[in-house]
Amino acid sequence: MRPSDRTPELLRDVTIETGVNRYAEGSSLITFGHTKVLITASVEDRVPGFMRGRGQGWVTAEYGMLPRATHTRGRREASEGKQSGRTQEIQRLIGRSLRAIINPTLLGERQISIDCDVLQADGGTRTAAITGAWVALRQAVNYLMEEGLITTDPITDQVAAISCGIYNGTPVLDLEYEEDSNAEADANFVLTGSGDIVEIQATGEKRGFSQGEFEALFGLARKGIGELCVMQREAGARK
Amino acid sequence: MRPSDRTPELLRDVTIETGVNRYAEGSSLITFGHTKVLITASVEDRVPGFMRGRGQGWVTAEYGMLPRATHTRGRREASEGKQSGRTQEIQRLIGRSLRAIINPTLLGERQISIDCDVLQADGGTRTAAITGAWVALRQAVNYLMEEGLITTDPITDQVAAISCGIYNGTPVLDLEYEEDSNAEADANFVLTGSGDIVEIQATGEKRGFSQGEFEALFGLARKGIGELCVMQREAGARK
Amino acid sequence: MRPSDRTPELLRDVTIETGVNRYAEGSSLITFGHTKVLITASVEDRVPGFMRGRGQGWVTAEYGMLPRATHTRGRREASEGKQSGRTQEIQRLIGRSLRAIINPTLLGERQISIDCDVLQADGGTRTAAITGAWVALRQAVNYLMEEGLITTDPITDQVAAISCGIYNGTPVLDLEYEEDSNAEADANFVLTGSGDIVEIQATGEKRGFSQGEFEALFGLARKGIGELCVMQREAGARK
Amino acid sequence: MRPSDRTPELLRDVTIETGVNRYAEGSSLITFGHTKVLITASVEDRVPGFMRGRGQGWVTAEYGMLPRATHTRGRREASEGKQSGRTQEIQRLIGRSLRAIINPTLLGERQISIDCDVLQADGGTRTAAITGAWVALRQAVNYLMEEGLITTDPITDQVAAISCGIYNGTPVLDLEYEEDSNAEADANFVLTGSGDIVEIQATGEKRGFSQGEFEALFGLARKGIGELCVMQREAGARK
Amino acid sequence: MRPSDRTPELLRDVTIETGVNRYAEGSSLITFGHTKVLITASVEDRVPGFMRGRGQGWVTAEYGMLPRATHTRGRREASEGKQSGRTQEIQRLIGRSLRAIINPTLLGERQISIDCDVLQADGGTRTAAITGAWVALRQAVNYLMEEGLITTDPITDQVAAISCGIYNGTPVLDLEYEEDSNAEADANFVLTGSGDIVEIQATGEKRGFSQGEFEALFGLARKGIGELCVMQREAGARK
Amino acid sequence: MRPSDRTPELLRDVTIETGVNRYAEGSSLITFGHTKVLITASVEDRVPGFMRGRGQGWVTAEYGMLPRATHTRGRREASEGKQSGRTQEIQRLIGRSLRAIINPTLLGERQISIDCDVLQADGGTRTAAITGAWVALRQAVNYLMEEGLITTDPITDQVAAISCGIYNGTPVLDLEYEEDSNAEADANFVLTGSGDIVEIQATGEKRGFSQGEFEALFGLARKGIGELCVMQREAGARK
Repeated sequence: MRPSDRTPELLRDVTIETGVNRYAEGSSLITFGHTKVLITASVEDRVPGFMRGRGQGWVTAEYGMLPRATHTRGRREASEGKQSGRTQEIQRLIGRSLRAIINPTLLGERQISIDCDVLQADGGTRTAAITGAWVALRQAVNYLMEEGLITTDPITDQVAAISCGIYNGTPVLDLEYEEDSNAEADANFVLTGSGDIVEIQATGEKRGFSQGEFEALFGLARKGIGELCVMQREAGARK
Repeated sequence: MRPSDRTPELLRDVTIETGVNRYAEGSSLITFGHTKVLITASVEDRVPGFMRGRGQGWVTAEYGMLPRATHTRGRREASEGKQSGRTQEIQRLIGRSLRAIINPTLLGERQISIDCDVLQADGGTRTAAITGAWVALRQAVNYLMEEGLITTDPITDQVAAISCGIYNGTPVLDLEYEEDSNAEADANFVLTGSGDIVEIQATGEKRGFSQGEFEALFGLARKGIGELCVMQREAGARK
Repeated sequence: MRPSDRTPELLRDVTIETGVNRYAEGSSLITFGHTKVLITASVEDRVPGFMRGRGQGWVTAEYGMLPRATHTRGRREASEGKQSGRTQEIQRLIGRSLRAIINPTLLGERQISIDCDVLQADGGTRTAAITGAWVALRQAVNYLMEEGLITTDPITDQVAAISCGIYNGTPVLDLEYEEDSNAEADANFVLTGSGDIVEIQATGEKRGFSQGEFEALFGLARKGIGELCVMQREAGARK
Repeated sequence: MRPSDRTPELLRDVTIETGVNRYAEGSSLITFGHTKVLITASVEDRVPGFMRGRGQGWVTAEYGMLPRATHTRGRREASEGKQSGRTQEIQRLIGRSLRAIINPTLLGERQISIDCDVLQADGGTRTAAITGAWVALRQAVNYLMEEGLITTDPITDQVAAISCGIYNGTPVLDLEYEEDSNAEADANFVLTGSGDIVEIQATGEKRGFSQGEFEALFGLARKGIGELCVMQREAGARK
Repeated sequence: MRPSDRTPELLRDVTIETGVNRYAEGSSLITFGHTKVLITASVEDRVPGFMRGRGQGWVTAEYGMLPRATHTRGRREASEGKQSGRTQEIQRLIGRSLRAIINPTLLGERQISIDCDVLQADGGTRTAAITGAWVALRQAVNYLMEEGLITTDPITDQVAAISCGIYNGTPVLDLEYEEDSNAEADANFVLTGSGDIVEIQATGEKRGFSQGEFEALFGLARKGIGELCVMQREAGARK
Repeated sequence: MRPSDRTPELLRDVTIETGVNRYAEGSSLITFGHTKVLITASVEDRVPGFMRGRGQGWVTAEYGMLPRATHTRGRREASEGKQSGRTQEIQRLIGRSLRAIINPTLLGERQISIDCDVLQADGGTRTAAITGAWVALRQAVNYLMEEGLITTDPITDQVAAISCGIYNGTPVLDLEYEEDSNAEADANFVLTGSGDIVEIQATGEKRGFSQGEFEALFGLARKGIGELCVMQREAGARK
């Protein structure tokens, strides 16, 4: 029995709001139950040093969590003077996931910076961030095309993500915090709209887990990501 | 003529939403036109080292701005590895303003940490933060009293803040960004509900300004803060 | 009764020595009673990145305090690895105050860096630093004019500063440390030679204070700054 | 055709030397072809703050790479003043992998710190580090048991790791640098001696990849890890 | 011929002022020609962690240079966020030199922190700092004895320092900046009042140098330090 | 009697292995008894900013110690976020020592970076690093000459180093850790192949020491460095 009484293969309520920042070229506010992530996509005319002069674009991401996004207040990374290893790991994952569905040559020599800030956290913030970031990126690219700055769409596919885990011995979809912190194993899946694997991160938290268990998690993820892709298309198409 | 067609003594539309964070003991989302600040008040059982063992409480504040809160994306302070001088100056001001209306002995040996995060910035973020922070603090103290953790209300008054400035030669209330960046002088006023001065910061931006101009700004501020105090009382009293 | 037996409207003994550093283009050692601040003005041929290519100059300031400038030894900021919020707030104030009386176009594309280092602190270090910095800046600009590097004087006015406060219920001028740490309110005023406001920072330390009290402080500050301006002119004119 | 002429399912030459540090309680030098990682396991009598007082032990890991471990010299993280996101990600992975096969209660309230320093890098440094770290940990635990400090073995299983990838369209085992930097996808597998999953990290580098491809990589990893476990047992049993 | 027309074995004019800081337990301002170093000795009741509980005291030193102490303005270490390698090397040397003539048991479990801040630099700042620091330490210890906090003098000898170098092929005493930056070799000698070696740091700057040259430098240093010791005794005995 | 039963004038067993890193242009692994230092010399085509455009080369050095190189595990400087004063002091010494025997004009506008990483420490790591670094540098320069990138050898002499100290009242050569930590005085000598002084650092650890004692240490150092130079020549000449 899940804390939320969901059946194992059920997502939480997911909403994707767009146009939530009046300055950003693309933006979204994505919620998975009590998890809320605010995402902006900012178009900048320069690329990082290692990409300069190649005629190619770059997509990068940063991730942050407000100090009281969580049950107890955490320390503010800006006042600590550094980002935690966890933060860096997550923002690297978001960036890789988005670059997997961008043709950098079609983007031209410009950078799109994705900022994912967690306003409230109840598990699954990194997968929510990836799923919502695709929508913000979609809108920023729409802006570039409407402005005539690029002519061919550089987005080659959708990309979305979900977490799964083994909770009380049962594989379940879309872990909330209470499940996540007690799961025997959890896995984050990042898949394209066409079902290809972009990234899998699977971890045995309390014990190793079997290949059969892994495959059950993978199956749940496929189902969930399929549903998320429908919502992404609808949100990304909004004016 | 102001960019927003407001008359000189008019506030922008102000809204104060409460209960916007499910974990924090108090929270508010305050908007002044396009400026939006999310505030949480977190009760913690320990006080900073320099306050330990005195039987007194402490109220402190931290301030941050999301990278794309502004017209062009700014750098994330957490990845820069330090808070700017501006950020530190603002969070010190917020903390001092709130401590001015708290009786630390009645609070008991606990800390209330106020986090003010700017989701969108169009001028006046520090004064919005102070005004909204009083509401979040009010609710956190209500929580402590409802839980029976403190018996006498340690909040001795309201505190609210507004910016004023001289724009095109005219003293105006509640500067938005376009006014702020072109003002000849600006001033932030922090006053109590009973009209006492908690803090004044007045700066000639393009030229020195006269005592008469200063007094005109002070008069506008009194009017604006009076209106804000009405809204604060209404919001602070919500369940 | 003040600890020093001064009447409320009396400055401490103030001295301004010049030519105290043989390398700097301008320098001064200013004392207010036991407070001693050593100031150098260094002319540099480059401006910060955000000013480059505009044909305009820049004046900036840094502030520091020797570890044993105070009653008990403080930590050395260089070994701590960062400047405190207080230090940053003060050096930003000094820089703004000086830029208020400089015509950047007449200065030409060069920077004058003002270093204010507190050798001994007994209250009022930031206002002493501003007052002494004008003298060091005056001498550095004299040097530029004597060398024929600029032809029209870019300094448009004097600027000086003083602190006031309410001590035992009485408004008093030029707080020393013992007064400052027990004041009910204090205020720093930065005025031009012609009496315009450059900056006001007023803070209720123990309680809010009334507009009447504020005006009394302002009146004291006008008197004190008038006296400081006389001393500045004499010191700035020295060879 | 692989650069080394290996068949797809072949490991590089692997060696595990033990007793390579005269001070550490356990140590190993593991090589996979030209990749060389020096590992020490240090027993310390204190645990991190969050573990104190629980009567349980902790295993943690740090990872570093000598500046000229790679084809061109990289910057030294100690002089840079911070560890890269990649370094933090890797050392977190090593720590989690080892904690998966340790019973913390049997270890008692002490910490074993694993230091993995890459002397030379030719791909696969993180998986080599995990595989060699188990041997160093094994020897450090043997030391604790021989000294009579613990009586029941806290190591519950072996843990080893290998990378696989799709190179020129073919799934291959144990990528060296030239393969790794040109792979279409790569995956790191961390499995226990009994074949359970501890961690999977799979990434599409140039394209998404299919579930079938993923399964082929998993099969190769099982085979390779089986061979590594034989070598680990032999090395861990040495005096 | 030396830039200052001094003969090779001549010190610059040296002065040692005492009582230059009204808060510090001991203080001195030492000048060697244009080099000026302000030194305070601060008595603190706690010792560093590694010394706690031994009933012994500790003497430590910190060194800094004001940004415009030198011909061209250097960067402020506090705003840089770290002390340079040179700064750390110098402050470690000053601390070791003073600990060589202190009996830590007689000092009791307290720390004396020596702060050496260079107001103006013209070569020889580290040796001036050591020589002046002994005087500040002497006065701080006198204070402890006068207050009855310690009964037996923990200072076992004097310690003073001087630089020498080979300039235009000639061994000379007490290098000023112009000589120092063109010397073929230089050496800093730290000797006790009784002539024992506390520290020698000798460096060939442009070429290696011979043992005979080294001995000539040593002879000059003995002479100079003898003269400095006379001045130290006079200054240290002042009330 | 020395802990190792060596006579006072005897070096520990010294070995110098070359070609220990397949990527570096020069490399060596030097051992003095249980002290082991791995050294690489990396040729880079750019020089530091302050050397640019002069047509001259630069040799620099960095030094590090693996956390468990020592009897008890030390903290990793990369995770601490800074290099200790000791580390900086040592790497500055190594760089100066090597620059003393390089003609920068013959090297051409390129940098050789020397990385010295201590794998195991039993005293004398800095002197071992200098001695081994000459061999790595020798090989890197041989590479540049064989590749035809430079035509005249920029290495003007050998440079080697050894520590000596007064242990139980007796001057002894090549201190191991147990001796070093109990020595009354120690000294590091860096001499050229032709016997000139490059650097001397002599310190009284427990007491000042006499000129006669210093001369005895110098004599031992000359003998030891003579033996090291023979080994260097043999190692540097290897293919």
